[in-house]
Amino acid sequence: MAIDYQKLKNRHFPDLEHSYTQRDTMLYALGLGAGADPMDIDDLKFVYEENLVALPSMAVVLGYPGFWLKEPDTGADWRKVLHGEQGLRVHAPLPAEGTVVGKTRVTEIIDKGDKGALLYSTRDIFDKASGKLLASVSGTTVLRGDGHFGGPSGPVPPFHALPERAPDATLDLATIPQAALIYRLSGDYNPLHADPRVAASVGFPKPILHGLCTYGVATRAVLKLCCGNDPARLKRFDLRFSSPVYPGETIRTEIWRDSATQVSFRARVVERDIVVLNNGVAEIA
Amino acid sequence: MAIDYQKLKNRHFPDLEHSYTQRDTMLYALGLGAGADPMDIDDLKFVYEENLVALPSMAVVLGYPGFWLKEPDTGADWRKVLHGEQGLRVHAPLPAEGTVVGKTRVTEIIDKGDKGALLYSTRDIFDKASGKLLASVSGTTVLRGDGHFGGPSGPVPPFHALPERAPDATLDLATIPQAALIYRLSGDYNPLHADPRVAASVGFPKPILHGLCTYGVATRAVLKLCCGNDPARLKRFDLRFSSPVYPGETIRTEIWRDSATQVSFRARVVERDIVVLNNGVAEIA
Repeated sequence: MAIDYQKLKNRHFPDLEHSYTQRDTMLYALGLGAGADPMDIDDLKFVYEENLVALPSMAVVLGYPGFWLKEPDTGADWRKVLHGEQGLRVHAPLPAEGTVVGKTRVTEIIDKGDKGALLYSTRDIFDKASGKLLASVSGTTVLRGDGHFGGPSGPVPPFHALPERAPDATLDLATIPQAALIYRLSGDYNPLHADPRVAASVGFPKPILHGLCTYGVATRAVLKLCCGNDPARLKRFDLRFSSPVYPGETIRTEIWRDSATQVSFRARVVERDIVVLNNGVAEIA
Repeated sequence: MAIDYQKLKNRHFPDLEHSYTQRDTMLYALGLGAGADPMDIDDLKFVYEENLVALPSMAVVLGYPGFWLKEPDTGADWRKVLHGEQGLRVHAPLPAEGTVVGKTRVTEIIDKGDKGALLYSTRDIFDKASGKLLASVSGTTVLRGDGHFGGPSGPVPPFHALPERAPDATLDLATIPQAALIYRLSGDYNPLHADPRVAASVGFPKPILHGLCTYGVATRAVLKLCCGNDPARLKRFDLRFSSPVYPGETIRTEIWRDSATQVSFRARVVERDIVVLNNGVAEIA
């Protein structure tokens, strides 16, 4: 079954109401490795109910419609999808607990022919009580099996180019071997991240970490390196996924201070010296 | 204010209904360090929704009435309490999710004079739907500041004596530095286990691990060493707490096979060679 461009582009997503507790907020941060140093008072605010604040990247798990590309009406070959890019715009700090409404829409589908298709989608996250827009989460999904559906071949937004010089600063954050098992409790229960048999069936020697967990780890690094660890200062966080991480590996985030308000970044796994997140750009207030 | 023996012994505890999800069951096991080896299929059943089974020690967090000794009507000096002993009788396997009812009662209070008081309490945990008794959880609380209240001076149940010979087997299970932060999401939010400032205020250099987390880690070790990692085979698990553990330390459980159905055990922190759990006895089916 092929993609029907108009149908998929105009797909209706019901509003998704999502209530979360302080416990959920702490658990999300623990899934990203926060709290690894029990004496780090500055990170305690992410994992402890006293003065608890949500990490801005938690928006990526709020109001999430699930793996909807698996539904037959999409026409997509869901077994061949990859998470290509992830973006975040922060409009207001996420409450440490609350109820939000997620509104998802497909914004474009690009036909890459033999290379498949690129599906761009955005989810706006609103505070339910006030109606205020809190965050916009955008993703690019690579549909490797779905090219040649007769859609537009462009334009494709260019990647953010990183500076050619050496990074201005780096920060290593270790993940723990059970990181994926903890992270998945924030809502993405794809067995690829838990079950070695499922991982083997798609060619991985062991379960891989969620791309969005690696994304969150990089967010933590940029907060520490560029924002004085104040989550309210992070306004945008866009990147491209380039390779999976295995739980237990160390993620080195490399940053370039482009200006007072913009940071470029990428991240690599230290143990294998492989770039896992690339072409990153963050906006800082 | 002193303890009123009759009043405290006959204290009424309302039935405590507690619903828990598969996510809670997985999170409890993750708090004990299960899932530390992502390739360990045999441990996956504790941390993954497919064929999920509850660790029997999870009973200690179900139907828990909270830190009720802090309530003024008890007459206890709650700042001086210590968790002395913990016991568990398993009557039927805990469901991986469900609703239970906890019924707590004080069974005895012993007046140790200058050494304070010993308060014995038991909580029976029933499956709400069937009314079946699932587990009985018993604890001994040392009330260091509450002796001389005119209660009975005995009898005190004797400690289980460990064999004099070297252990028959040992198993080391590492904890992670964020173990207490994860474990506390199962319901014991005492800041002593999270906040370095609170820990310092009572003389600890950093937050300590929950005694009941260490208890659960020892349960996991006995399951692996003596039960083929089958939680249904563990019927009793009693021990005495002797020293706190710091998150990140390695817990070595030492066992003696007393008979086909009884195991003696203790546990020590490898890094400091200090016994942390002592006089343990488990019954195995």
